[in-house]
Amino acid sequence: MKTKIIKEFGTPCLIIDLDVVERNIQRAQKLCDKAGVANRPHIKTHKSPLLAKMQIEAGARGITCQKLGEAEVMADAGITDIIVATNLLGAARSGRLAALQQRIALKVCADNPVVLEAYSNAARESGRPLDVMIECDTGQKRAGVETPGEALALAQIINNDPMLNFAGLLFYPALDTWPETQIFLDKMIRGFAVLGMRHGIISTGGTPNFPNIGKLLGATEHRAGTCIFNDRMMIEAGFAQQGDCALHVFTSVVSRGGEDRGILDAGSKTLTSDTGGLDGYGLIREYPKARIHKFAEEHGFLDLSRCHTKPEVGDILRVIPNHVCVTVNMVDQLVAVRGDTIIETIPVSARGMLI
Amino acid sequence: MKTKIIKEFGTPCLIIDLDVVERNIQRAQKLCDKAGVANRPHIKTHKSPLLAKMQIEAGARGITCQKLGEAEVMADAGITDIIVATNLLGAARSGRLAALQQRIALKVCADNPVVLEAYSNAARESGRPLDVMIECDTGQKRAGVETPGEALALAQIINNDPMLNFAGLLFYPALDTWPETQIFLDKMIRGFAVLGMRHGIISTGGTPNFPNIGKLLGATEHRAGTCIFNDRMMIEAGFAQQGDCALHVFTSVVSRGGEDRGILDAGSKTLTSDTGGLDGYGLIREYPKARIHKFAEEHGFLDLSRCHTKPEVGDILRVIPNHVCVTVNMVDQLVAVRGDTIIETIPVSARGMLI
Repeated sequence: MKTKIIKEFGTPCLIIDLDVVERNIQRAQKLCDKAGVANRPHIKTHKSPLLAKMQIEAGARGITCQKLGEAEVMADAGITDIIVATNLLGAARSGRLAALQQRIALKVCADNPVVLEAYSNAARESGRPLDVMIECDTGQKRAGVETPGEALALAQIINNDPMLNFAGLLFYPALDTWPETQIFLDKMIRGFAVLGMRHGIISTGGTPNFPNIGKLLGATEHRAGTCIFNDRMMIEAGFAQQGDCALHVFTSVVSRGGEDRGILDAGSKTLTSDTGGLDGYGLIREYPKARIHKFAEEHGFLDLSRCHTKPEVGDILRVIPNHVCVTVNMVDQLVAVRGDTIIETIPVSARGMLI
Repeated sequence: MKTKIIKEFGTPCLIIDLDVVERNIQRAQKLCDKAGVANRPHIKTHKSPLLAKMQIEAGARGITCQKLGEAEVMADAGITDIIVATNLLGAARSGRLAALQQRIALKVCADNPVVLEAYSNAARESGRPLDVMIECDTGQKRAGVETPGEALALAQIINNDPMLNFAGLLFYPALDTWPETQIFLDKMIRGFAVLGMRHGIISTGGTPNFPNIGKLLGATEHRAGTCIFNDRMMIEAGFAQQGDCALHVFTSVVSRGGEDRGILDAGSKTLTSDTGGLDGYGLIREYPKARIHKFAEEHGFLDLSRCHTKPEVGDILRVIPNHVCVTVNMVDQLVAVRGDTIIETIPVSARGMLI
């Protein structure tokens, strides 16, 4: 397998095993089904219409994107039920949001009135009302309004604007803020009742939150990205085991300096400098005690001091990246295999979408 | 200018000012000219044939690449004097090195016999000898042989192989290892004399090493990448001032949570998680005391606690990235301006070349 890969593609190269991908897609779908919420996978992880369609065929209601450019690529491929889960200010002001909104009924998100105004202008430009969800923050200190009062105020602005439709609430709750999310949501539901508004989609998110899926009463959808491939962070989080990791970076040992040093041909321009909060930059399957401790742009530096046997120059190693979403975003294609057979190359069509 | 940019391109967007680019190209060329060494800029920073040709027109002898894929793109654009400054094992074994070697007389690098063997096989496949330089490490603990003895042994392997030509030595000396590099090089020159070999190119590298250019007696070329754009690392290193930074990431403030928090639409998929050893992820020109302290994939999280005035949602900010080379590698195009006028878009044609 390694020999075939290097002959056809060289190294470094990103390999996904479709058998594992399919198993992972099924697993996420079943977890959603069991909890009684719709599955709306986040495609930021794979950025591939082909893989998004596999998720939809397995039962997903639609998809989640993080960038308008990603939604454009997915719409081009015929996928039309899309939430873009972020404040789309740059895209709204550039005219690209209006252009896409003319083609499909997009759902977008906001956490402030400035973005709502840009959405309203974009909808006017496109000629039809835009579905808007409100992003809510229940302790993560990421994007999102922090109180039900603010969320209801935004919902009313949307409700009063003929060019905007209120479409629901977007949460990104972590394990430790789940009860707070319930309190927040209950207050919102009471508020909606007073205002005579429908609550729309109630979306929760995140692969590490699957163990809590179903606990938020009122949730209607879950969006998770990483679970299609998994990575070292998901292993650390207890959600995945090594065999659940569908993506490996195949990389060659290109140099050995001294007893304990080695150099891979995968550096920060392949694996990225995103540690995901872990020690070292990836798990080497063949040498789990080797530590990728530093990067140059095209080199990964190995500390081999804890390895009994050590890799030699020319060896090809398989690395599970710490954070698979940012690694996939570095490349234009993935090589899809089943076990030892190379099946096809899959373009990462929505890679590098800034807007 | 900001309004024009967001209307035409949205945010985030990478903007280069060609006036500053031209000034930076001239500056590097003059520093090389004054030191009496040839200029061979490293194109890993810009990955653009158009910009590489501007460097050659300003006097550069040729270019340096870090990946075979980069050299392929440059060769397609008509640039033929290229050093690929790394152990090209994956590319050599895949057949792509042989294919490019059939088209142009490439110079490649090695620091071990396994790579030399792969080069020899590739050269046999291509049908003509391959020029090989030896990478030497004089204290950085990156790639490179660590002793003149090892370097001479590799030089002899190259010399004895009819499919390989010895082409020179590649150093990456830092300020604090300059005297060690001189000792290493002097031993090599004496060794070459004994062996009856010509020393070929003696290449030094790095933008931060410009202050020492000319100090290594015997050096024939210098390769520097970052100086075409500069970045926050080069400001910290004392090589550049803010006005020498040709590239800015234009980004919108898309959310404000609480008094001291803000969110940019540029995250780790735009600016990258590469800190370059600095605190925070970039210098915001309009709010130099604001700190980009954390990333999500598409969000940069601002700590505004040290700012007297604070940006509002909708403001467009200009960020000098910590490490410009990895930031450029995230995008498919740069928007080129002169002052307030948008001139053209420049494709980052050699972006994301894994091999």
